[in-house]
Amino acid sequence: MALTVMSEHSLPQIPGIRLASVPAKIKNWERDDLLLVALDEGARVSATFTQNAFCAAPVTVAKEHIKSGTVRALLVNAGNANAATGERGIADARACCEAVATALNIQPSQVLPFSTGVIGEHLPLQRILDGIPQAAEQLRADGWDAAARAIMTTDTKPKTASRTIEVAGEQIRIAGIAKGAGMIQPNMATMLAYVATDAAIAQPLLDTLVQEAVAASFNRISIDGDTSTNDACVLIASGATGQAVDGQSEDFARLKQAIIDVHIELAQAIVKDGEGATKFVTVQVTGAASIQEALRVAFEVGESPLVKTALYASDPNWGRLVMAVGNAGIDGLDAGKVNIFLDDVQVVQDGGRAGSYTEEQGESVFSKPEFTITVDLGRGECQEHIWTCDFSHDYVTINAEYRT
Amino acid sequence: MALTVMSEHSLPQIPGIRLASVPAKIKNWERDDLLLVALDEGARVSATFTQNAFCAAPVTVAKEHIKSGTVRALLVNAGNANAATGERGIADARACCEAVATALNIQPSQVLPFSTGVIGEHLPLQRILDGIPQAAEQLRADGWDAAARAIMTTDTKPKTASRTIEVAGEQIRIAGIAKGAGMIQPNMATMLAYVATDAAIAQPLLDTLVQEAVAASFNRISIDGDTSTNDACVLIASGATGQAVDGQSEDFARLKQAIIDVHIELAQAIVKDGEGATKFVTVQVTGAASIQEALRVAFEVGESPLVKTALYASDPNWGRLVMAVGNAGIDGLDAGKVNIFLDDVQVVQDGGRAGSYTEEQGESVFSKPEFTITVDLGRGECQEHIWTCDFSHDYVTINAEYRT
Repeated sequence: MALTVMSEHSLPQIPGIRLASVPAKIKNWERDDLLLVALDEGARVSATFTQNAFCAAPVTVAKEHIKSGTVRALLVNAGNANAATGERGIADARACCEAVATALNIQPSQVLPFSTGVIGEHLPLQRILDGIPQAAEQLRADGWDAAARAIMTTDTKPKTASRTIEVAGEQIRIAGIAKGAGMIQPNMATMLAYVATDAAIAQPLLDTLVQEAVAASFNRISIDGDTSTNDACVLIASGATGQAVDGQSEDFARLKQAIIDVHIELAQAIVKDGEGATKFVTVQVTGAASIQEALRVAFEVGESPLVKTALYASDPNWGRLVMAVGNAGIDGLDAGKVNIFLDDVQVVQDGGRAGSYTEEQGESVFSKPEFTITVDLGRGECQEHIWTCDFSHDYVTINAEYRT
Repeated sequence: MALTVMSEHSLPQIPGIRLASVPAKIKNWERDDLLLVALDEGARVSATFTQNAFCAAPVTVAKEHIKSGTVRALLVNAGNANAATGERGIADARACCEAVATALNIQPSQVLPFSTGVIGEHLPLQRILDGIPQAAEQLRADGWDAAARAIMTTDTKPKTASRTIEVAGEQIRIAGIAKGAGMIQPNMATMLAYVATDAAIAQPLLDTLVQEAVAASFNRISIDGDTSTNDACVLIASGATGQAVDGQSEDFARLKQAIIDVHIELAQAIVKDGEGATKFVTVQVTGAASIQEALRVAFEVGESPLVKTALYASDPNWGRLVMAVGNAGIDGLDAGKVNIFLDDVQVVQDGGRAGSYTEEQGESVFSKPEFTITVDLGRGECQEHIWTCDFSHDYVTINAEYRT
């Protein structure tokens, strides 16, 4: 039932990075569910993590280990989040890192662990420990596509994106994979994303870049600071190709844009594969007094269950749009200055139904698989946008039956 | 599919108040959808209204008219919200008030109009104007039960509550009716409630009382300040029985509690009749550092779609409870001090799965039609509770097909 995600293309190899996916039977399924990523010496890694107060054990350990500054491996398991698992959860995550360190002959503090899946159950540790040496033997540069599949949970499709650009006469590659599908309230779905390039980027530049890229992508489908127990986005610069790029150069600006574009493509793929999603909708807010209020209105509209069920029904129930805008808590909002468009069709003019609007026009937009809702607040020059999806019967089915 | 709402009992007559419900064909249906309430001279009326920036035309007019201090009539229509209808919507609401004033020989400013239903469509004004004189002729003291049915929209059952108490040797009656059924995000459902007593209560006391009663009832199923375009709660003291009650007396304390109890019973009935609801759940938060943070956590848990779908599935997926608690944005929350109980069953101890907990215990609670989730934050002495319901397939069906 999910929307077609952009055609699954083969990701490029990123010199300096090898991957392996193996079946560790973390759940009772037949599929790869354990991913090992090995980085050659010299790679730089930066990441953003969940701000949930119950952050999962692997997040606690990964935050600690990334401070080493010399990350050499990532380990990701699907099927079990190792969250709300107390001291034993932390010990389990450390045990995983130790096993990876032994297999790759590095230090445990050079390993970042990640988990996604059911919360509150202990990892099937022995099966993971058994899988790690097996994965270490199978590391390969062309393991990206298999990796995208290994980290899936309720995702119906692997999510990948890539770019290749020329910088100073050399080809630079960017590859990214992501998972995460709970979309009615995106802050509750675990989102994991791994983006890597073979460019050489200095650590401070990389740290800023991952923040900027996440702000422009994954934070447009979720609320800042309101995240699942396990969310993480990791950006890797292997440095295997070319000289370090000067942060002030035009080359860096192009590289940065390409990296952000990969993040946006992955974020949009997550929305399109939203649990039960049948529509991909951009909510654009213009005429706002501030960026902050534009985002607030966009999220109020894009996350309203009443709006999302109307999207599912292809029912241009614009009264629900108006109600959501009114609920955003914007001080002094003048309803009489609000205009709303469905693609090019004006549905609300000066706070009421537009004179030119017909139900048929609205239906023709709402029945499209992709469209844009634009809300003009008529009070300033700022604009922002987010991406959302509709809310269908399948969402309830998927989430009511998740653990069975 | 909705839960059984407390048995529909006949409401007592309230001296000084007469009601009539008539079919005005506001939608293409065969039922009463227009309610007229007439108050004898001397009645006191107080109300709380929506804080949505797009407040509906009747709300704008009612807020203006209630300032007259001598309200003599209420007019409520179901099926059309007269919201986002611009200047014409305001004119329509005023025309309704004028028609009531003519029929009852009072001033238009003594009439409060209310509407609930689809947003963004103009009222079928002529049909309402035709219905008003008809209703005025049928006013009767025992019209409460019919009134509760006339104001329904997606409600599956009328919602009523009443109390009779003795004050200074005299019987005082309290009757209440309410409507409102959208429960996944209660702030988006129009909630209307009308509670009346024949006691004599001075205006300042009544004004305070309606605020207190709403805070203890309807605001426990919704977020303060985040309301639909049409929400209103009206408290009427006809004063037809007995002397004015002294606000400092024990009698007033008992009267006040009875009035608050009627509000709570109505609020709970709304939750139990939540769209597609099959479970009624109290979310209690204890050990909080403040009332505000207790409510914040309670709403985060009670409104999480992932928690609500787990309730529907009778799946004690307590990881989702933990995730929701962690998402409440409580500064400095120590996850290791959080304990969670499902009725008497401890499921989370010190932030992890309780040693004594078994899945069977959790299932036996989650499969009940009514139970309590208690979250102890372990950081203070404050506690608060809210009421919520589960989130089922029927919710999507009802909301996707609302306008068809």
